[in-house]
Amino acid sequence: MAKEKKLPKPKAQTPKGFRDYFGSDVTERAEMLSKIAGVYHRYGFDALESAAVETVDALGKFLPDVDRPNEGVFAWQEEDDGDWLALRYDLTAPLARVYAQHRNDLPLPYRRYAMGPVWRNEKPGPGRYRQFYQCDADTVGAGTVAADAEICAMLADCLEVVGIPRGDYIVRVNNRKVLNGVLETMGLNEDAQRDAVLRTIDKFDKVGEMGVRELLGKGRLDASGAYIDGVNLADEQVEPVIGFLTSKGDTAAQTLGNLKVAVGDSAIGAEGVAELEQIADLLAAGGYGPDRIVIDPSVVRGLGYYTGPVFEAELTFEILDEKGRKRQFGSVAGGGRYDDLVKRFTGQTVPATGVSIGVDRLLAALREKGRIGSESAGPVVVTVMDRDRMGDYQAMVAELRNAGIRAEVYLGNPKNFGNQLKYADKRNAPVAVIEGGDENAKGVVQIKDLILGAEIAQSASLEEWQDRPNQFEVPRANLVAKVREILESYS
Amino acid sequence: MAKEKKLPKPKAQTPKGFRDYFGSDVTERAEMLSKIAGVYHRYGFDALESAAVETVDALGKFLPDVDRPNEGVFAWQEEDDGDWLALRYDLTAPLARVYAQHRNDLPLPYRRYAMGPVWRNEKPGPGRYRQFYQCDADTVGAGTVAADAEICAMLADCLEVVGIPRGDYIVRVNNRKVLNGVLETMGLNEDAQRDAVLRTIDKFDKVGEMGVRELLGKGRLDASGAYIDGVNLADEQVEPVIGFLTSKGDTAAQTLGNLKVAVGDSAIGAEGVAELEQIADLLAAGGYGPDRIVIDPSVVRGLGYYTGPVFEAELTFEILDEKGRKRQFGSVAGGGRYDDLVKRFTGQTVPATGVSIGVDRLLAALREKGRIGSESAGPVVVTVMDRDRMGDYQAMVAELRNAGIRAEVYLGNPKNFGNQLKYADKRNAPVAVIEGGDENAKGVVQIKDLILGAEIAQSASLEEWQDRPNQFEVPRANLVAKVREILESYS
Repeated sequence: MAKEKKLPKPKAQTPKGFRDYFGSDVTERAEMLSKIAGVYHRYGFDALESAAVETVDALGKFLPDVDRPNEGVFAWQEEDDGDWLALRYDLTAPLARVYAQHRNDLPLPYRRYAMGPVWRNEKPGPGRYRQFYQCDADTVGAGTVAADAEICAMLADCLEVVGIPRGDYIVRVNNRKVLNGVLETMGLNEDAQRDAVLRTIDKFDKVGEMGVRELLGKGRLDASGAYIDGVNLADEQVEPVIGFLTSKGDTAAQTLGNLKVAVGDSAIGAEGVAELEQIADLLAAGGYGPDRIVIDPSVVRGLGYYTGPVFEAELTFEILDEKGRKRQFGSVAGGGRYDDLVKRFTGQTVPATGVSIGVDRLLAALREKGRIGSESAGPVVVTVMDRDRMGDYQAMVAELRNAGIRAEVYLGNPKNFGNQLKYADKRNAPVAVIEGGDENAKGVVQIKDLILGAEIAQSASLEEWQDRPNQFEVPRANLVAKVREILESYS
Repeated sequence: MAKEKKLPKPKAQTPKGFRDYFGSDVTERAEMLSKIAGVYHRYGFDALESAAVETVDALGKFLPDVDRPNEGVFAWQEEDDGDWLALRYDLTAPLARVYAQHRNDLPLPYRRYAMGPVWRNEKPGPGRYRQFYQCDADTVGAGTVAADAEICAMLADCLEVVGIPRGDYIVRVNNRKVLNGVLETMGLNEDAQRDAVLRTIDKFDKVGEMGVRELLGKGRLDASGAYIDGVNLADEQVEPVIGFLTSKGDTAAQTLGNLKVAVGDSAIGAEGVAELEQIADLLAAGGYGPDRIVIDPSVVRGLGYYTGPVFEAELTFEILDEKGRKRQFGSVAGGGRYDDLVKRFTGQTVPATGVSIGVDRLLAALREKGRIGSESAGPVVVTVMDRDRMGDYQAMVAELRNAGIRAEVYLGNPKNFGNQLKYADKRNAPVAVIEGGDENAKGVVQIKDLILGAEIAQSASLEEWQDRPNQFEVPRANLVAKVREILESYS
């Protein structure tokens, strides 16, 4: 099978759906995650870092009894024992495995946070990558909704600490049990019918109240002109669903009152409403008012997946979409209660609740708000006028660095001085330092303010600019002080 | 092939050779890497984060024309186009691909740093994992040894910034060209013989001068009693090698003088010595004296791989090995110049030099020195005496957190108060807060100093301890102040 041949040059190309991150795209994300980790830590959550690789068996969903079980994951088979391994597709499946494996050594309840890349073997598309970051916090082993309330408060704190001001976000809380109560009062006992209603509710965000009414009834024409068959419920069955989705009042008390009506005399529904009431009370006690966290039954995302409280963080400021229309920035985090986390490993039901922050979405929001991503400062570039005096230039950068100033000496071919200034430009250097033979003999250095230089170049016709000096001759001993003065004038 | 069957419960187990990291093992590494990133950044290096996944083709070494090309890497085949993908095995191969792919957009020279996990498909062993961290800095496109000198200085700064004091480490510098000169003066023209000499030199660390003499000559009995055949060189051929390996003098000038003798009239050897001289001068100009960085021709690790300067950072303080014997901690970082980085992609030779810091080794050294790893502080635990008053307890933790104090409320079943204190113990909580009905009625809280409590329990027989109170009743309004007072008494 294997045969020797001269191979062509390999393509220098990331695999499809993967990408490289450079400079501030790396450091800004790291800084944001570090701030979030600080909040998680202050709430008593401990860091957990599991490996990128899990057995397919432990990841679940993906059955080992097919030829190549890599639907949705990147998977391969071990050579020695034939085990299938795969890259994790989220941080929750590994948490389940970790908790089941180490449960005797972990505190109960176990609060943990995890941050890192996950991988999806999916068709890539524009802005849709096969490796991306997740940033989760979960509490395992606590059945009380105090755990859910805590995570909502923590989520609000995280958003503020990274730079989303209060008023620009809202955390909305709903509860799957309330929806179950609504389905019960509707008398829906067939799973297929319940599923159809769940799927319809999931479209509430898009189609609104009228759309849901139509889809639960006879059906509706969608935007493309296609006719979508309805669930064919009677009007009186549709009413509780609409009541549920539109039950948000001006206060938590009003909303809860509306929900009590929507769930009728369903026990599970009443339990769900009571849980929401408890969450609202706990948050109020912690000082988290409705300007930050609200009970909002119109939050439907994830209601099919979670088993109790569900929460979502939305950014409420407006941006312009690709067509120039104003719209709200939208969701940046979500989570809820899922009570079967480790059951598949141990057979025991262990309650769990958690949140996942959308790292890329939140970074995009911070860029949108101008919180990050302003032109990042390049290093001071010390140019090389005389290649035999590299030691003198190294001494300059060492002095600058020891003073905490980012600095580098030009390491390319120094022959063409213009190339050195082009390099400084490409590096976004705020300042260039020049010391040729004349300067050296006089004991001075030239310090060029490149930011001002660029401004003058842009405004060359204005007299006021032309008179402003952007290059300064200072004694060699004043190098650090003058560079610092220029840098501080821009900070 | 696929058939439906009831699966047994999956094992909750990391795959062989992978592990989980908890709490401070995660945060201490993150802190160390963040400090190193700070130094790299100050030197003008830019962050780069490429994906974990590369095409096998781009990674190199691993040929795609065998059935399953995953020798040494974790690899799998794409379903749609049959491309082989693999997890990166280091951070240098991706750098080569990134530089070749983006070279028109990157500054020249390009200084970049990268930190992250890499994967090796090798047999795991004790302390030997198949996923581990690397932390690299490289300069691409600079032929001058000023780039090598800079990386040596940066390496010294990194070690100091993470907590290795000056005097506890040394960066040693050697040069492959000097060795080439030595081989030339020996008149070794056959590749096989040169390779045999290179392999022998690589053992200098272990077998010492006498061992190298024997191995280059007739051969030698190794520790296990087996006879190792020698290279069968004549004594006068062996001499230059020994001269090279033992040429370190008391000063750089002495060492360089000895090396000049060892390379005879070899041109490449003279070039190598001149490069070392230049590096020594540049480092001296930057203030990096021989207490931090030395020219040391006994550094042989990697001489076979690199093409010019080679460097290694060693920690010189002593530790006890597993048999209780004193030995030096040893190497924590290494690097050098490798000038064929992107040639396989573009056909062009691009000079490059870089360093890789052994993340796990350096963390182990910092633990050894007591710089990190002292019992990490758990959160203040607010206990739950009355489950109906969870809101009051939430208000307490919110107050503590807002004051910057790590705090959590107990979220398990509060029925058994002993379990709550056991939980606080498992969490390494320094303080527990208790407020039952009586306290609530009186407007006070009980604050338990758990660190002092543990000390008293250990020294129960000593009278002086028994009188020291470790529980304090304070007005509810003084909660934060009293907790802070206790925490500060231990910091």
